[in-house]
Amino acid sequence: MSMASEQNPLIVFTPSGKRGRFPAGTPVLQAARSLGVDIDSVCGGRAICGRCQINIGEGEFAKHGITSSATHVNGVTQVEERYDRIRGLPAGRRLSCQTKIEGDLVVDVPPESQVHKQVVRKEADTRVIALDPATTLYYIEVEEPDMHKPSSDLERVYIALKEQWGIDHLSTDLNVLADLQKVLRKGEWKITCAVFSRNAGGGNKLAAIWPGFHDKLFGLAVDVGSTTVAMHLTNLSTGEVAASGGLMNPQIRFGEDLMSRVSYVMMNPGGEAEMTGAIREALQQLAESVATQAGISVTDILEVVLVGNPVMHHLFLGIDPVELGGAPFALADGMALTFPAREMGFKLNAGASAYILPCIAGHVGADAAAVALSEAPHESDEIMLCVDVGTNAEIILGSKQRLLACSSPTGPAFEGAQISCGQRAAPGAIERIRINPETLEPRYKVIGSDKWSDEDGFEDEIKATGVTGICGSGIIEAIAEMYLAGIINQDGLMDGTFAARSPRIEQYKRTFNYIIRQPADESNQPLIRVTQNDVRAIQMAKAALYAGVRLLMDKLEINEPRKIRLAGAFGSHIDMKYAMILGLIPDCDLARVQSAGNAAGTGARIALLNKAARDEVEHVVRRIEKIETAVEPMFQQHFVEAMAIPHKTANFVNLKKVQELPPIKTIAAADDEGGSRRRRRG
Amino acid sequence: MSMASEQNPLIVFTPSGKRGRFPAGTPVLQAARSLGVDIDSVCGGRAICGRCQINIGEGEFAKHGITSSATHVNGVTQVEERYDRIRGLPAGRRLSCQTKIEGDLVVDVPPESQVHKQVVRKEADTRVIALDPATTLYYIEVEEPDMHKPSSDLERVYIALKEQWGIDHLSTDLNVLADLQKVLRKGEWKITCAVFSRNAGGGNKLAAIWPGFHDKLFGLAVDVGSTTVAMHLTNLSTGEVAASGGLMNPQIRFGEDLMSRVSYVMMNPGGEAEMTGAIREALQQLAESVATQAGISVTDILEVVLVGNPVMHHLFLGIDPVELGGAPFALADGMALTFPAREMGFKLNAGASAYILPCIAGHVGADAAAVALSEAPHESDEIMLCVDVGTNAEIILGSKQRLLACSSPTGPAFEGAQISCGQRAAPGAIERIRINPETLEPRYKVIGSDKWSDEDGFEDEIKATGVTGICGSGIIEAIAEMYLAGIINQDGLMDGTFAARSPRIEQYKRTFNYIIRQPADESNQPLIRVTQNDVRAIQMAKAALYAGVRLLMDKLEINEPRKIRLAGAFGSHIDMKYAMILGLIPDCDLARVQSAGNAAGTGARIALLNKAARDEVEHVVRRIEKIETAVEPMFQQHFVEAMAIPHKTANFVNLKKVQELPPIKTIAAADDEGGSRRRRRG
Repeated sequence: MSMASEQNPLIVFTPSGKRGRFPAGTPVLQAARSLGVDIDSVCGGRAICGRCQINIGEGEFAKHGITSSATHVNGVTQVEERYDRIRGLPAGRRLSCQTKIEGDLVVDVPPESQVHKQVVRKEADTRVIALDPATTLYYIEVEEPDMHKPSSDLERVYIALKEQWGIDHLSTDLNVLADLQKVLRKGEWKITCAVFSRNAGGGNKLAAIWPGFHDKLFGLAVDVGSTTVAMHLTNLSTGEVAASGGLMNPQIRFGEDLMSRVSYVMMNPGGEAEMTGAIREALQQLAESVATQAGISVTDILEVVLVGNPVMHHLFLGIDPVELGGAPFALADGMALTFPAREMGFKLNAGASAYILPCIAGHVGADAAAVALSEAPHESDEIMLCVDVGTNAEIILGSKQRLLACSSPTGPAFEGAQISCGQRAAPGAIERIRINPETLEPRYKVIGSDKWSDEDGFEDEIKATGVTGICGSGIIEAIAEMYLAGIINQDGLMDGTFAARSPRIEQYKRTFNYIIRQPADESNQPLIRVTQNDVRAIQMAKAALYAGVRLLMDKLEINEPRKIRLAGAFGSHIDMKYAMILGLIPDCDLARVQSAGNAAGTGARIALLNKAARDEVEHVVRRIEKIETAVEPMFQQHFVEAMAIPHKTANFVNLKKVQELPPIKTIAAADDEGGSRRRRRG
Repeated sequence: MSMASEQNPLIVFTPSGKRGRFPAGTPVLQAARSLGVDIDSVCGGRAICGRCQINIGEGEFAKHGITSSATHVNGVTQVEERYDRIRGLPAGRRLSCQTKIEGDLVVDVPPESQVHKQVVRKEADTRVIALDPATTLYYIEVEEPDMHKPSSDLERVYIALKEQWGIDHLSTDLNVLADLQKVLRKGEWKITCAVFSRNAGGGNKLAAIWPGFHDKLFGLAVDVGSTTVAMHLTNLSTGEVAASGGLMNPQIRFGEDLMSRVSYVMMNPGGEAEMTGAIREALQQLAESVATQAGISVTDILEVVLVGNPVMHHLFLGIDPVELGGAPFALADGMALTFPAREMGFKLNAGASAYILPCIAGHVGADAAAVALSEAPHESDEIMLCVDVGTNAEIILGSKQRLLACSSPTGPAFEGAQISCGQRAAPGAIERIRINPETLEPRYKVIGSDKWSDEDGFEDEIKATGVTGICGSGIIEAIAEMYLAGIINQDGLMDGTFAARSPRIEQYKRTFNYIIRQPADESNQPLIRVTQNDVRAIQMAKAALYAGVRLLMDKLEINEPRKIRLAGAFGSHIDMKYAMILGLIPDCDLARVQSAGNAAGTGARIALLNKAARDEVEHVVRRIEKIETAVEPMFQQHFVEAMAIPHKTANFVNLKKVQELPPIKTIAAADDEGGSRRRRRG
């Protein structure tokens, strides 16, 4: 009797719709495998892992052409009862490896039982990532050594992986070899293997082994910023973030921004090794901290994916970044790298591998590549602009058809540096501001309090921190509001005649300042104001950003991208309206300008969860046309023209819409109510 | 005009006989390449490396169908004159990259200018190894960075390797990345690359880089023995051994023989790490010593090939060897391994790779695999026996058709251990001995002197060392000579009645000793004698060896191999006649019994010089049928029967021939005259 005989029971899997006939007594898992239905299993059908859970369908029989509505499976087995007792089985769930077909049957495979589960990346986004990490766990039973047919323990492990899981072309390294015999004997010839396999055609690496059944497999997605390092410990079996952590980049003691760190190396030969040591130590410390937070051992971490701007990229790889400090800004390497994580000083599982996303160009790093992976302009039908703002703005513009990238030297003004009262986004910093165009009086919000400065109880709430300065989003809003109130003109110059209208306009030598907060005399808090130089610094920064975008728009011969994504902490905090009013970004339907959140971190997580995404980002980066602003004759002209607010060439439909809206104060208040939930601190 | 036009000059290369027509002015190197003539070049035709030297043929024109006998090439160029001035060019030699075809021409490519030079392995052997190491040098000129088309330095190196040498699918590691930018700039965009490529289909690894032209490329062939470690520093460009060194295995302090080292780990958990540390330290020390001896830097060493018995193999890899100490004698891994040499603690070039030959079975190690690679029984039409004698004898028997291997526990008696006056082969040890069957008087030779003990001046020559004991080859000869003189019978028992014939037969309790040397009273030198227990120890050892061989002969249903190769120091020192008289080896035409010298070391060198040999040995080892003597019921019976001298089943044509020869004393003397040149200390 053939497997497909008409007498055999029919089994239908949902949601795939795959169906087939199997002899009575066939385990559902086996039927699923032979039909190519995606059901997860680490233990290979031994009722240990509990990954292969199914629901026996009800009421769907007729729909699938099954006439009987009886539940044609065996009863719950002892091993399932045992599994339920020890690890818990949701009501109605069966383990498909223990469930046997006894008649026509509809079986539903819930999403969490699928190997290639879809990991939804963002609530508001349709893009989904299928879980398919480079490292996977396999439980195997290994033959014991036999003097009548001598073979090594490793050979028998390879045979088991081949026979029980179809995994071939295996290699391993000395760390696994050193543990192998003890692990096999401790597990009584039953072990769990972590296998790393990068490409379908390439070989597979036996990366780690544990005695018996082991189902903890984690990875780190790491975004190494010049200022902060962010790390997400991710469960590679579920795709969930198990713990997140961040710390200040300890390289800050060698220089606040990128170029001062490069200078440090120039002045102190060998200084790159100190900085490499500092960041690697911090990364290990952070890894240990997130592992502790999630209650796992660092030896359960088998993958690390790192992104960063080119200088960070070179420094964590142990490469001297001095070449990036001057023309022609040559990267040592920009291609993606895969190597044992221990070579970067990580003390995780000794078999953990590191993957570094490719850099795009000398100033457009692996972080920008990760933004591209996250925002997927290469899959967009419409032209899309992705901007990641740091000391340099990394800019990607294009669509499916054609992609361009460049970087523009915005400097650190957007991060609050080089601003007289500027500071990082931290409690005490002004982050929102509105100026009454008639009275010129400001109202503002401070990080650490939900109240506006003109609300009751504001002063109480900020007592602990005081008001210490203005952060990046605060200075953008301050200058945009000063422009809307007429305090500064289109050229960014403060109108001295306003000094007569309000004591908030203060003359200083030949220029004027706008005073936001005059603290009470007895307090030790600083005077918070915006100077003419502050306005200039922001104008320079925004002009640089816009000039870079404009250059890429010229190449594509467009005036307006159809979508804009602003990545990074800056992108998460600023109000898009003000960005457009100041001319940071080109004209675009405001509804289509969005923060991409920590898109670089998201890109790193995608590369961690899906190995095909690594091929994707490498391919995309090769496709991107790299534009070096320093050699583009139009860049300087765009820069000069973009100094104006919003800029000389501005004649934008969407900007006009913004300006024609009811008085900004009102909108802002309304928006803020609904917006505080939407906007999160990155 | 096509390249092959009849009007174009004809060029004929010898010895290949390849010929073709090329336009006048074509460089000879270019013509050679397009005809597939094997001419070496590291610099790619830039007159730097001097590898492409040729002779312009004379007097061979007619033979090749060339009528004119004029020398149709351009004159010696300035760059050749410069090369000759700086590095020297043998008389008559030209650089083929500088020599241009001007008319019909015969060009001779000397052997040293061929890429795949044949490296003759042994004078007396026809087997030759073509030089084709896994790592090769390539000189390249790299494009400088250009802001108009940004690309990383590494990308441009890869492009140069692809365009200038056709090398593709490249990867590299962090060590090269860390140096890349400085090396490129120091070399002014001209660098030499070491590229590792294991398999034709696999990828290539950029292993190391040097500024400018660099032509030093070396490898280490290492045989890690239980007692001694031998290392050959080999020039991978010429195949020549540049320096050799050896030292005592420092693990000896943990136990003299293999099993006592395994016991040390059993008694001292973690003791394997101490032993791993000790051997790795010694290997590094030895590498530095041979590098100094050859006047090179250790950073010129890019390859290491290691062999050793299974316990040594596990210990240098950092694997606990306890499983090898008891049944079922399971190896952790027996498959060949390739990994970065730094992972074994080597501080050579950071890009150096290590290759470990496969082990055959739990007691038949990578050293035996190397012997197989060296002696090539798998290529033999006739059945061949290869034996490597150490604490265990590793035995391979077979031919092209079928190969078997086993190991037999001979113990350390053959190395002079467990023998009352036994010692290692070192100055002062008796290595040769003859006993006059009538007088029972011995004459002997001592390591450190060329004189026999009955020659004038012997005592003077040995004054410095004294006579301190008997080494392995000495004890074999002593017992065989005692047997031939009738002092011991076929069962190995001393005949007490001989005590009446000579004071050299001394009674001790119920047994007898044979006194070889009675030192003068006033000297502090020891009495040298052979005891009944010594005879027993050698009988046990030789019975074990023979029983293993017999077992394999049973499987092949033969009584006599057609060739025997005895590998290792033991095989180099013993006299084959005595080996046959005692029954260490089976019956075989004595002319076909040969020492294989340090065959394990030779095998390691072959794997170092020729990457295809790595595939070969891996394939051969998979083919070999592994026999575990411990589970073979016949082994014990063969062992018991082989205790007799030569053994119970002996009825050998060849042995008879040996015994029918003129009195042994005469042969020995005659043989010794011619033999001292042939035999070398291993």
